[in-house]
Amino acid sequence: MLKQQRTIIHNVNPQLNKGQYTIKRVVGQSVTITATLLSDGHDIMAASLNFKPENEKNWQEVRMNFRNDEEIYASFKVESQGYYIYRIEAWIDYALNWQHGTGRKIRDNQQVKSELLEGAQFCEAILKMAATDEKKFLKAVINAFKDEKKYGAAIEIAQSKELYDIFYKYPTKTLANYSEEYHVYVDRPKALFSTWYEFFPRSASAKEGKHGTFKDCEKLLPRVAEMGFDVLYFPPIHPIGEINRKGKNNTAQAGKNDVGSPWGIGSKQGGHDAIHPDLGSLEDFKRLVKKAKDLNIEVAMDFALQAAPDHPYVKAHPEWFKWRPDGTVQYAENPPKKYQDIQPFYYESEDWKNMWREFLRIALYWIEETGIRIFRVDNPHTKPFYFWGWFITEIKKKYPDVLFLAEAFTKQPIMQELAKQGFTQSYTYFSWRTSKSELTNYVTELTKSEMKEYFKPNFWPNTPDILPPHLQIPNEPIYMIRYFLAATLSSNTGIYGPVFEYMVHEALPEREEYKDSEKYEIKHWNWDLRNKLTEVITKINFARKENTSLQQTNNIVFCGTDNEQILAFYKFSDDKWNQTLIICSLDSHHTQIGHVRLPLEYIGNGQVKVVDQITGNTYWWDKEWNYVELHPTLPFHLFRLVWE
Amino acid sequence: MLKQQRTIIHNVNPQLNKGQYTIKRVVGQSVTITATLLSDGHDIMAASLNFKPENEKNWQEVRMNFRNDEEIYASFKVESQGYYIYRIEAWIDYALNWQHGTGRKIRDNQQVKSELLEGAQFCEAILKMAATDEKKFLKAVINAFKDEKKYGAAIEIAQSKELYDIFYKYPTKTLANYSEEYHVYVDRPKALFSTWYEFFPRSASAKEGKHGTFKDCEKLLPRVAEMGFDVLYFPPIHPIGEINRKGKNNTAQAGKNDVGSPWGIGSKQGGHDAIHPDLGSLEDFKRLVKKAKDLNIEVAMDFALQAAPDHPYVKAHPEWFKWRPDGTVQYAENPPKKYQDIQPFYYESEDWKNMWREFLRIALYWIEETGIRIFRVDNPHTKPFYFWGWFITEIKKKYPDVLFLAEAFTKQPIMQELAKQGFTQSYTYFSWRTSKSELTNYVTELTKSEMKEYFKPNFWPNTPDILPPHLQIPNEPIYMIRYFLAATLSSNTGIYGPVFEYMVHEALPEREEYKDSEKYEIKHWNWDLRNKLTEVITKINFARKENTSLQQTNNIVFCGTDNEQILAFYKFSDDKWNQTLIICSLDSHHTQIGHVRLPLEYIGNGQVKVVDQITGNTYWWDKEWNYVELHPTLPFHLFRLVWE
Repeated sequence: MLKQQRTIIHNVNPQLNKGQYTIKRVVGQSVTITATLLSDGHDIMAASLNFKPENEKNWQEVRMNFRNDEEIYASFKVESQGYYIYRIEAWIDYALNWQHGTGRKIRDNQQVKSELLEGAQFCEAILKMAATDEKKFLKAVINAFKDEKKYGAAIEIAQSKELYDIFYKYPTKTLANYSEEYHVYVDRPKALFSTWYEFFPRSASAKEGKHGTFKDCEKLLPRVAEMGFDVLYFPPIHPIGEINRKGKNNTAQAGKNDVGSPWGIGSKQGGHDAIHPDLGSLEDFKRLVKKAKDLNIEVAMDFALQAAPDHPYVKAHPEWFKWRPDGTVQYAENPPKKYQDIQPFYYESEDWKNMWREFLRIALYWIEETGIRIFRVDNPHTKPFYFWGWFITEIKKKYPDVLFLAEAFTKQPIMQELAKQGFTQSYTYFSWRTSKSELTNYVTELTKSEMKEYFKPNFWPNTPDILPPHLQIPNEPIYMIRYFLAATLSSNTGIYGPVFEYMVHEALPEREEYKDSEKYEIKHWNWDLRNKLTEVITKINFARKENTSLQQTNNIVFCGTDNEQILAFYKFSDDKWNQTLIICSLDSHHTQIGHVRLPLEYIGNGQVKVVDQITGNTYWWDKEWNYVELHPTLPFHLFRLVWE
Repeated sequence: MLKQQRTIIHNVNPQLNKGQYTIKRVVGQSVTITATLLSDGHDIMAASLNFKPENEKNWQEVRMNFRNDEEIYASFKVESQGYYIYRIEAWIDYALNWQHGTGRKIRDNQQVKSELLEGAQFCEAILKMAATDEKKFLKAVINAFKDEKKYGAAIEIAQSKELYDIFYKYPTKTLANYSEEYHVYVDRPKALFSTWYEFFPRSASAKEGKHGTFKDCEKLLPRVAEMGFDVLYFPPIHPIGEINRKGKNNTAQAGKNDVGSPWGIGSKQGGHDAIHPDLGSLEDFKRLVKKAKDLNIEVAMDFALQAAPDHPYVKAHPEWFKWRPDGTVQYAENPPKKYQDIQPFYYESEDWKNMWREFLRIALYWIEETGIRIFRVDNPHTKPFYFWGWFITEIKKKYPDVLFLAEAFTKQPIMQELAKQGFTQSYTYFSWRTSKSELTNYVTELTKSEMKEYFKPNFWPNTPDILPPHLQIPNEPIYMIRYFLAATLSSNTGIYGPVFEYMVHEALPEREEYKDSEKYEIKHWNWDLRNKLTEVITKINFARKENTSLQQTNNIVFCGTDNEQILAFYKFSDDKWNQTLIICSLDSHHTQIGHVRLPLEYIGNGQVKVVDQITGNTYWWDKEWNYVELHPTLPFHLFRLVWE
């Protein structure tokens, strides 16, 4: 390969898997790029960071700075949704190099008449680009450089800051070299800051034993809004299969009145593009979505790619399922376990392309027909990664504001891969991380490793599938602690709501699953009830709305404490305008006392007022280590730091 | 992108800068590849490492093993010179997956009749590929799987190791996925194991004051061979410029009889493809090269891309040089320093392609006309990296056995880049690394970082440009130590010979350069003289020939010692057949005593005989820590480890 360029650009960072995947940001955030720049010899190198929204023609440019001889860096801000492209442009800056070398010769008392003539050439090349007053200056420089009688003045100008500034401003970029192009996907801010409430719409009725409807759900919207939630997530709302339907507590045989699992999608009443008739009509759903929007709540739909045995697809597209040589169908299984109420789709099918397109059609149907912009995707890790990469890209091309939450509780590399393929947010291991070291290590991995570039955690204390051991007792402080930690450690958070608020805590024996799970039956909740948990959750949610440092996840610094039961961390908004200090007891039974270290390396020395965003209490802290005392009645502080 | 594959291959390692550059090996070495393999769901994944010499059509294949759920690895051996390609091939192994799942169901006492029919299909697919006795077995299996009366036997066979082995041997590789392709360049063994002796041919005359000739050099070949050297490197042998020729000690004005620097190449007598007439004719040189080869010595030429002011290129190709606006030429400079006896080539020239092609022609001329296969390249870091990448690739395509030593003493990233562009060997910082920690850290970086994949160090205690402070006294022990360390730490080593052997040690004031340097004048050496250094160097060189562990650099483990003046390390050949333990005092003035720890984690426990390869002395060591006593008279041990 014949290539005349003299600069070489390496190690462009961030880049995911050699640029195969895009890093992610939300509108208004910065992207800081670093790289290594090399060249032969001793000439002065220069570089720019080029960037643009994918569909724009012209690159924007910001000059890169040197951290040392070869490490360069620069930042740009992303201001619109969708894909951005960035690359590095590098060149030998011959004009600056000339000034540098000629200056050294001048200071060594060498004669530089010949060099000055070269300098004049650099100035002449810039003339046409320069502004009027710069032109005037350049003409004077050229004149001095060419006139031997002005040698004394010329060697002064040759070394001047003014000339440097002009050369810097108008680089000639001879033989510029370019890095590969990399992508960043920019989401709307909700991708980074969202507060989820989950309930089963069929349990929304005020009347016990009655199948809830979207109209019932409408009545609950004000309650959800008042508590400060802004995403309302429903399990699947489609018709539920009748063949092999599961009974209460996941029994293989459903009774006559059993309603089945909403994830057993499809029956003669329709499939993934239909609505369960007991919930209401499409119009009802659309009205619910709209009314929610009026209260600043987005409805999130479940996207679960599996079919009940009586799903319309089974007859219409038998080739989308796997059939055994004896003509039986392959049910979902994880041997020796079998899940006979659902059939997985067969991604090895010869008709796979049509199947993929149908899945895309379904999602687009809900997006276009109802205005849904958030999907919680069920078990994405059991469908091919490339499917998700294609599916999410296709949707984002048309609707860049659609967000996807990956419900994958599996190995870390798999969860990472899903996020790389395009999932906006991901469920996490938070539900099982309880000790100070577990929480610190996990959050550090999420926020300080490469994951910070593409993986947005969503912390849930519980879900319909997860009732962790520590929530299997009706202990109010631990419920407070778990929501407080979820909602302050992560800017995306959520609860499986009524069950959490009312501390439903009975588990199946030796399992982390709810007994009499709502997944298999209609529940009745006293939606008028507001308890202490309801109030505390509300206060936490409003503190999140008022403190921008809690609306992001990566800017976190764990603080020293002298008590293993006290976790403390400092968070700050990108602009540092908002700074919070979160202190939480991990002990739901006893008072814990100890000292917390202020992160002086971030906040500086001097007195700071700490204002509790839950209680309104104010303290003045002027030492590095500060005394705290946390009681199970309210086992945490959410301090805003204020300097007056 | 619609892609049906279910496996994803990441983190293929080694790979240099995203596969942009090739890793390197020598014939007979292994390449071990690791990667991460992911898939959706729980199905069983499988992978092969594919590899082949670049020009061969068919891939060879070796199955990869799993280190854990997703980390895979395998190795292959490179057996011929030139480029190899490797890639990873991965698939879901449906047959093994079937066996795994069916086995679990059988052990759970489930009925698997339907599954057995699937199993029969897998067997049928393999039938046509299988060997005769395997066919027989498979037919029996199919028969049992399809015959309900043989259910008992069938479920035994279904779980059998025999069936597993057949499935493993004949994978169907449905929807196989492939990593990108990566390259490895394979050199001949000399790339990794070479022992260089440098002298100036013009100083080869037995008669003082007489310009040496190739014929004089011929007479010195037996001496070089007897000392155990196998590469004889000459500074440039071309005509030396007469305009601006440098005088003795690098003075700007040459006297009438001054011979100039051999690196000031080109005069009316010719340029880079000519021979200095005082050295002899082309025929003389060819005979020298051939006679050297008969003694197993390769002559290495210098390749220095710069021109004296009277080089024929200056008139024939003025556009290959940079001219100032006033018509003067741009001499080599590093402001405020100027080097007026040489002109750099102008790589920004519009005629750059012809210039590059001419440089290639010169190298090919020497390769084809004289059989030269090793070049020591002068200051490659002051010429564009892409030039070297192109130049070396072009030569290797035709002559894969050509080796290039990069003479670049500059920043580590630049030295690394040159090696990545294709240089076989590199000069290093060894000349300035003297303390135990300096040597340990430096060699660890070279042999344990990514550099081990592409950077082959060549350790020189001195060069015509480098007389380090510790060699500026005529202290025999330090000369012994420095050669011993160079020749045992690195399998490529060399000395600027007569000067080193005779401990020429006078430096320019406060410089690390030789006073009255041979670079600017003819020297007279008493080539008949053999001193203790000559003898010790010879012994070390022959110990290197006899111990294959010293013929490679990367297999090194530093050993604990309880004395900062004692450095100890263990080396082993790839096959572990040869193992050595090197113990060296760093103190050239005093006796040092201490204990050295045997690396039991590599060699195991039990008594080992250590046989000194320099003295022949033998000791039995049976403890972890062993007493050593090193005197300046012979301040090291080169032990071969022997178990009897």
